[in-house]
Amino acid sequence: MDPKTLLEPLGLDALYVTRPENVRYLSGFPHPEDAQVLVTHEGAFLLTDPRYPEAERESRIPAKVLKREEKEEAFKGLKGRVGFEAEHLPYAALERLRELAPAEWVPTKGVIERLRLKKTPEEVERIRKAQALAEEALAHALTLLKPGVLEREVALEIEFFLKRRSAEVAFPPIVASGVRGALPHAGASEKPLGAGELVTLDLGARVAGYHSDMTRTVALGRVDGELRRAFEATLAALERVLEVLGPGKSTKEMDALAREELKRFDLDRHFVHSLGHGVGLAVHEGPGLSPYTEEALEAGMVVTVEPGVYLPGVGGVRIEELVLITETGIELLSRFPRGWREV
Amino acid sequence: MDPKTLLEPLGLDALYVTRPENVRYLSGFPHPEDAQVLVTHEGAFLLTDPRYPEAERESRIPAKVLKREEKEEAFKGLKGRVGFEAEHLPYAALERLRELAPAEWVPTKGVIERLRLKKTPEEVERIRKAQALAEEALAHALTLLKPGVLEREVALEIEFFLKRRSAEVAFPPIVASGVRGALPHAGASEKPLGAGELVTLDLGARVAGYHSDMTRTVALGRVDGELRRAFEATLAALERVLEVLGPGKSTKEMDALAREELKRFDLDRHFVHSLGHGVGLAVHEGPGLSPYTEEALEAGMVVTVEPGVYLPGVGGVRIEELVLITETGIELLSRFPRGWREV
Repeated sequence: MDPKTLLEPLGLDALYVTRPENVRYLSGFPHPEDAQVLVTHEGAFLLTDPRYPEAERESRIPAKVLKREEKEEAFKGLKGRVGFEAEHLPYAALERLRELAPAEWVPTKGVIERLRLKKTPEEVERIRKAQALAEEALAHALTLLKPGVLEREVALEIEFFLKRRSAEVAFPPIVASGVRGALPHAGASEKPLGAGELVTLDLGARVAGYHSDMTRTVALGRVDGELRRAFEATLAALERVLEVLGPGKSTKEMDALAREELKRFDLDRHFVHSLGHGVGLAVHEGPGLSPYTEEALEAGMVVTVEPGVYLPGVGGVRIEELVLITETGIELLSRFPRGWREV
Repeated sequence: MDPKTLLEPLGLDALYVTRPENVRYLSGFPHPEDAQVLVTHEGAFLLTDPRYPEAERESRIPAKVLKREEKEEAFKGLKGRVGFEAEHLPYAALERLRELAPAEWVPTKGVIERLRLKKTPEEVERIRKAQALAEEALAHALTLLKPGVLEREVALEIEFFLKRRSAEVAFPPIVASGVRGALPHAGASEKPLGAGELVTLDLGARVAGYHSDMTRTVALGRVDGELRRAFEATLAALERVLEVLGPGKSTKEMDALAREELKRFDLDRHFVHSLGHGVGLAVHEGPGLSPYTEEALEAGMVVTVEPGVYLPGVGGVRIEELVLITETGIELLSRFPRGWREV
C-alpha cells in the first residue's frame, strides 16, 4: 500500500484506521483489536499499548507502543484533513478525537475494505491452507455422524481438530440436523442426530488471520421426498452459478441466477439469505453476492457461493463452495465432494 | 428494568441499545451481536432479523423479526428524543438513523452499563457456576504441566475441558511460562514449558453469557531468587487489598494500595496494568480498579483483584481473584489455593 496513492484521491492528509481486520491488513499485527493504524503521507504506523511490548517485531510497519496519555499527546499533533472509518469508529470516540486534534475529521467508508477485495497470491495461499484444514476436519466429522450423537459433539470435534493443528475456527461450526436444518444460522445444539435426517455442516478455519468457509449437507441414512428434492434444487442452483461465475460477472445477477434455478423447483421463496460473500481477513467481507449489491467480480476476489433451501418445520439444505475468481473464470478452493451422500 | 425509571431522568422518549452485552442484559437473547433493543415508555422490545425466526422464544422481552426494509420502516415512526449508545454506535450508523427517523438522536454513555454494575443473585449464580468450572479446568491443567509440554497444549486442554462441559472460554486461556511471563497478555505460544520456570495461567469460563476470570502462577520445579520474591510481593499486594476491600471503598485507592505494597518490594514500577475490573456479561466491564477510576464499590459488584509483577527478559507473576462485594465485605468467588506451589 502506497500512502500517497491511497490518500491523494481522497484529498486526505492522513487516515486513522480502527477496524481490526483493516489494522491487520495494513500491519500484519496479530492483536488488531488492541491497535490502530495511522496512514500519513510519510508512511503508515501502528499504534498500540504497553500490553504489547513486542509490537515492533510483530508488525510489518513501524509500531509505537504508547500509554493512554502519550497517545492523546500524539493526536494533538495531527493537522489537516484526517479520515476516519465511519462504519467502525463509535460516535463518542470521534468526539474525543475532535477534542484532542486540531484536524478536520472526515468520514470515510470502505477505503481499506476496497483494497482487501482482491487477494494477493500470499493471501490466497493462507485461505487455501485454511480450507485444506477445514476439509480434513469435515472428513473427520463425517466419520462421527451416527444417530444419537449430539450436534454439539460434532461441532466440538471439528473445533478441536482444527485447534490441535494450530488453526482457529473461522466461526463456531454449524451442525444443524433434521428440522433444525431449516434455521440458516442454527449453530449446534444439544439435539441428537436422528436416522433419516439431513445434517448441514458449515465450517471454516482461520490460518494467520485468514478464513475459509464451506458447507455440506449429508443424509444420515435414507432420506427422500421433499428434502431430497430440496437437495437437488440447491445443487442445481449452485452448479448453475459455478458454470458462469467469473471476472466481470455481476454480483446481483449471480444471486438472481441461483434464485431463478430454485424457482424451477418452486423453492425460491425458501432461499432466505443472500448467495454469497467475500472471505479473507473477515469471514464475511466484500463483495456480497446478493439482491442488494451491484458489483462486477474481479480476478483475485475470493467468494462463497451458498444457495440453500429452508423448509420450516421440515428441514433444510445448504451447499457452499469457496471460489477464487481468476483471469479466465474460477478456481474452486473447496474441493470436498458436494454430491448426495448417505453416511 | 422499568422503562420509565430509566428514561425519565435522562429526558428521553426512547433508548436504542446496540452494544451486544447490553442487548443480552435487557433481553436474554443469546445472539445479541445480531440484535438491538429499543426501550420506550411502553416497554422494551428486541429487534432482530429473519436468521433468528425463534427470537420470540429466546428473548425475555417481545421480539420483532424484521427484514432490512421493515426495520428501516419501523425507525421512520420514531419521534422525540431518542438516546443511542455513543461509545458503541458507529458514526455512519448514527447518520443512517438520523436520515431515517424524524427524532432527535441524543448521545448517551453507560446507561445500561450502570445497571449492569450490581449483579442480581441470579447473575452471581451464573458467574459462580462459570468460576467453579474454570477451577475444575485449572486443576486438570496443573496435572499436565511438565517440561517440554507446549503452552498452547495446556491452553487447548483448558478450552476443551470447558467446552466438553457445555461452557465456553471467557477468553483464550493465557499460559505464559518463563520469560514470556513478563508479557501480561502473552496468550499461549508454541514455547515448551521449562524446568525451573514460573507458569502463569489466566483463565475464565462463560456460562449462559456470564464470565469468570482468575489467574494463578505456579512453579515448574524449583524457582527462587527474584522470581520467588516477585511472587511474594504480588501475593502480599493481593492480600493487602483483599483485607480491606468492601462496599464504600474507592476503586482508585484499592489500586493505589496494591502499588504501595509492591513499592515495599521496590517492584511497583513492574506492575504495568490496572488492579482489576468488573466481570459479568463482559469479561472486562465496570467498575475498573485503576489509577484512572474514582468510584465507590457497592454490594453486588463482582470484580477481579489481579496484581502482577513483570520483569522483562526474566519472567513474571500474576495472581487474580474473583470477588463479590457484599453488604459487609467480600465473598471470594475464586476458591482455588493461591499460595506458592511447585508442580
